Amino acid sequence: MSQFSIAVIVGSLRKESLNRKVARALAELAPSSLKLSIVEIGDLALYNEDIDLDSPPAAYSAFRQALQGADGYLFVTPEYNRSVPGVLKNAIDVGSRPYGKSAWGKAKPAAVVSVSPGAIGGFGANQHLRQSFVFLDVLCMQQPEAYLGNAGTFFDEQGRLNEKTRPFLQGIVDAFAEHVARTLKV
Amino acid sequence: MSQFSIAVIVGSLRKESLNRKVARALAELAPSSLKLSIVEIGDLALYNEDIDLDSPPAAYSAFRQALQGADGYLFVTPEYNRSVPGVLKNAIDVGSRPYGKSAWGKAKPAAVVSVSPGAIGGFGANQHLRQSFVFLDVLCMQQPEAYLGNAGTFFDEQGRLNEKTRPFLQGIVDAFAEHVARTLKV
Amino acid sequence: MSQFSIAVIVGSLRKESLNRKVARALAELAPSSLKLSIVEIGDLALYNEDIDLDSPPAAYSAFRQALQGADGYLFVTPEYNRSVPGVLKNAIDVGSRPYGKSAWGKAKPAAVVSVSPGAIGGFGANQHLRQSFVFLDVLCMQQPEAYLGNAGTFFDEQGRLNEKTRPFLQGIVDAFAEHVARTLKV
Amino acid sequence: MSQFSIAVIVGSLRKESLNRKVARALAELAPSSLKLSIVEIGDLALYNEDIDLDSPPAAYSAFRQALQGADGYLFVTPEYNRSVPGVLKNAIDVGSRPYGKSAWGKAKPAAVVSVSPGAIGGFGANQHLRQSFVFLDVLCMQQPEAYLGNAGTFFDEQGRLNEKTRPFLQGIVDAFAEHVARTLKV
Repeated sequence: MSQFSIAVIVGSLRKESLNRKVARALAELAPSSLKLSIVEIGDLALYNEDIDLDSPPAAYSAFRQALQGADGYLFVTPEYNRSVPGVLKNAIDVGSRPYGKSAWGKAKPAAVVSVSPGAIGGFGANQHLRQSFVFLDVLCMQQPEAYLGNAGTFFDEQGRLNEKTRPFLQGIVDAFAEHVARTLKV
Repeated sequence: MSQFSIAVIVGSLRKESLNRKVARALAELAPSSLKLSIVEIGDLALYNEDIDLDSPPAAYSAFRQALQGADGYLFVTPEYNRSVPGVLKNAIDVGSRPYGKSAWGKAKPAAVVSVSPGAIGGFGANQHLRQSFVFLDVLCMQQPEAYLGNAGTFFDEQGRLNEKTRPFLQGIVDAFAEHVARTLKV
Repeated sequence: MSQFSIAVIVGSLRKESLNRKVARALAELAPSSLKLSIVEIGDLALYNEDIDLDSPPAAYSAFRQALQGADGYLFVTPEYNRSVPGVLKNAIDVGSRPYGKSAWGKAKPAAVVSVSPGAIGGFGANQHLRQSFVFLDVLCMQQPEAYLGNAGTFFDEQGRLNEKTRPFLQGIVDAFAEHVARTLKV
Repeated sequence: MSQFSIAVIVGSLRKESLNRKVARALAELAPSSLKLSIVEIGDLALYNEDIDLDSPPAAYSAFRQALQGADGYLFVTPEYNRSVPGVLKNAIDVGSRPYGKSAWGKAKPAAVVSVSPGAIGGFGANQHLRQSFVFLDVLCMQQPEAYLGNAGTFFDEQGRLNEKTRPFLQGIVDAFAEHVARTLKV
């Protein structure tokens, strides 16, 4: 049976980021058909075509190769100022260049999980990210939507996922596994 | 008569960026009630609260001071992947922190000019930026909207603004001057 | 002292709509500088320029006059399918026509309160509505944002606003009164 | 060989609507794997749950059956006030109810073609519609995007599609046929 490799991209650089914890929890809960690996984005220089044309920064090239090697993408992101964090949008931009050679590929499957300590669950970031997917030809899972609010309560002091939250995350990653299989087995 | 200082933020880091040229043209065309100065964003590290809490990077502090010293903001930006460039969003995020101490201030006037070589004129970037303004309490000029398409034709080989485009840019910056005066004279 | 007349537009047609109840509560809580009156939108035919050109429907004309007579607008709306209810968007469209003669006027003040029984509080409807305001030249209050989630708990069985919710609504309508005064006294 | 039935929904009610003409042109250009039929939305009463619960209007029921009988959806729409026309959004809303029984089904394929006499090609309507698709679990084609600007020049005085526009529309409907086949053959 085939296993699909999923590049997980976390929209926060904080070491103790709730998003990173949720990403790790999803990786653990993922069914065996998916292998989730976090791809780091913190060392990507702010995108500037001037530094990209002749000899791209090593971090740009490595990131693009990681995207090209993945069968699909999972985004786990906070919302900054009602939209996608600049950190994550910069990674989106780096991956999309140079023109006509987007590393995001063609019609690969993806999912977005937005995570927030507040009630709204990162809805604005989640939806703005999807608008970029249209241009990038990334096929995002529609249902279930994953706006994870009040995420400060998801983990106990030892960093363990609490029992109330687990089934919710399990449902998301299981649905994503189906979305990946359906999209890629065509 | 008072002159208002406007921080101009350009969403592209390319040296020969069309956006930078448009920003400079707007600065020249601005009526005497406005003083437009470009505030650079290319040296702002990707936002990470971990590096910001105790001793913020010098570039963060300088950028925040520039925002605090401005009476209003003018954004001139391309669209990357149907949304705000990561470069610009990162600047938005840096300016908005730390929590509760946003350097963007309260209800300051602003305008967005989106610039693109294509037909659509950066509509997606323009509107996504406005969604952040809601949270940031930035009062953006509504009309006229400025989606500048086919911007590759705006300047001649010597970089001079052509005569057909000038009145359009003049109209935008004049309307912005009124918006600034109306917002700040209250 | 002047009193500003505010046209209140409710995005749900249900008789027992939570939105209508919130609109009424806001009308009662409004400071004396504002007079809030609900303008009905349920009898506006689906917009069709063919029926509008020579002799507009009476309901269209009455609605446009109500808008023109108002000093500002307050929208209280649910979210339908992650966006503005068709009912409300139709009213927006009717008010905006005929071309070049929008009844929404120029730079009038407004506010949006989105109301939902769920956690997210109608964020998608709230923000989509604001995108229309750009074109309509309506100056919407930015802060505080009003995403009213879990609205099923706001009223008791007699329909009275509970004491916990009152200060929140009071804060919104007071801020709106300031926004109206600031915008119109220029 | 199977033929998929596609419900075509036009966002303008005008008889001489450019959108209707584009919809008809797409129907003619469609490959034999697709059968495109326009489903009318002009007689759907503004959505109101109060009239829907016990005995839904006949027009509501007929529209829902048309959706349920279709294998996929094609939306051809103008932009009104930078968003989806109320007319079209109302049809979206009617189709989505009653709660838990959406007539839009599960993960059916769709495409959006936005049409405008102006330069921007209905970008705002196109993207807002996609936000509703997330909730509705409609799988919209990402690429190619179809923002049809300057659409006043597409047809000659006899209403015939001009030769310059034909290949563009052909490309869209061919890509849609592939999207439908890929989505439904799983």
